[in-house]
Amino acid sequence: MRILGIDPGLERTGYGVIDVPAGAPPQLVEAGVIRTRTTDPLAGRLMEIASGLAAVLAEFKPETVAVEELYSHYKHPRTAILMGHARGIALVTAAQAGVEVVSYPATNVKKSLLGSGHAAKEQVQRTIQGLFRLKSPPEPPDVADALAVALCHAYRTSRVALAARKAFAPGLAASRAKSV
Amino acid sequence: MRILGIDPGLERTGYGVIDVPAGAPPQLVEAGVIRTRTTDPLAGRLMEIASGLAAVLAEFKPETVAVEELYSHYKHPRTAILMGHARGIALVTAAQAGVEVVSYPATNVKKSLLGSGHAAKEQVQRTIQGLFRLKSPPEPPDVADALAVALCHAYRTSRVALAARKAFAPGLAASRAKSV
Repeated sequence: MRILGIDPGLERTGYGVIDVPAGAPPQLVEAGVIRTRTTDPLAGRLMEIASGLAAVLAEFKPETVAVEELYSHYKHPRTAILMGHARGIALVTAAQAGVEVVSYPATNVKKSLLGSGHAAKEQVQRTIQGLFRLKSPPEPPDVADALAVALCHAYRTSRVALAARKAFAPGLAASRAKSV
Repeated sequence: MRILGIDPGLERTGYGVIDVPAGAPPQLVEAGVIRTRTTDPLAGRLMEIASGLAAVLAEFKPETVAVEELYSHYKHPRTAILMGHARGIALVTAAQAGVEVVSYPATNVKKSLLGSGHAAKEQVQRTIQGLFRLKSPPEPPDVADALAVALCHAYRTSRVALAARKAFAPGLAASRAKSV
């Protein structure tokens, strides 16, 4: 099973592709970030996100796209609406490519990775670094967040993925793992 | 000049196409609404909005797409983000069709149509009915709102359109018209 995790944002949209082979832990295939210039018109920036994600979908052909649930604790309506623009683009680009879309609340994503729904960005980055044996934490954090939501879906659908995560972070209780 | 006004929303996206001929008042070409089912998955609903707007763009070939500015007074972040999804789809669909996108604050749209930035939906509907000599007010209100933002752009770019509006609503002061 191949999963594309997306962390949508207007300035930076993180993406991460993982493979979840039968009987083996998740493998990192590709990850990166689509950046847009704040000085460009909004419609053009959204089009860059759409074409960037369409290229990733075409190259890596994931079976599933995973994104965070839409609720977010943005204080300003403007920020929330702009994030919504980018998230809408991610969803429609996946749907237009005929790929299944799943979403998970942000707290579930963190809980499934770290055992706690409230964790700093650095913790997510370090855990992703450890799980995929990377030389340094993924940068920017949007890349780690994209991989985190992809892994959340992997844990939901693969027992082996879940077992591999427990081996990396044995402190995670099995009951918590079930709650994702 | 042909303008497509869009009032994006997840449940109902209103659209209205107007022509602004040189030396004549704006003409209504086509208007309608794209509805999606609340029971359908979000990505599929967004894809319906995208393909509906793409069809309108392909059929009527506007030179410009006009939408309201993104700020809105939604009380709930969830509602704001969902509106943002639909608005993002509208912008990217227009950009992908190679059409110029312009946006106006909601208060400017109402002010340019009615002389006041704060007006009830029914007032917008009745004014649109009068300007285009329709038998009844456009329904649902999203259609009138889409035509209103298209007209706002027409008034901004055409003196004849502005003169026609003043003839219909002579109470509007010229200074106000300039402020849009």
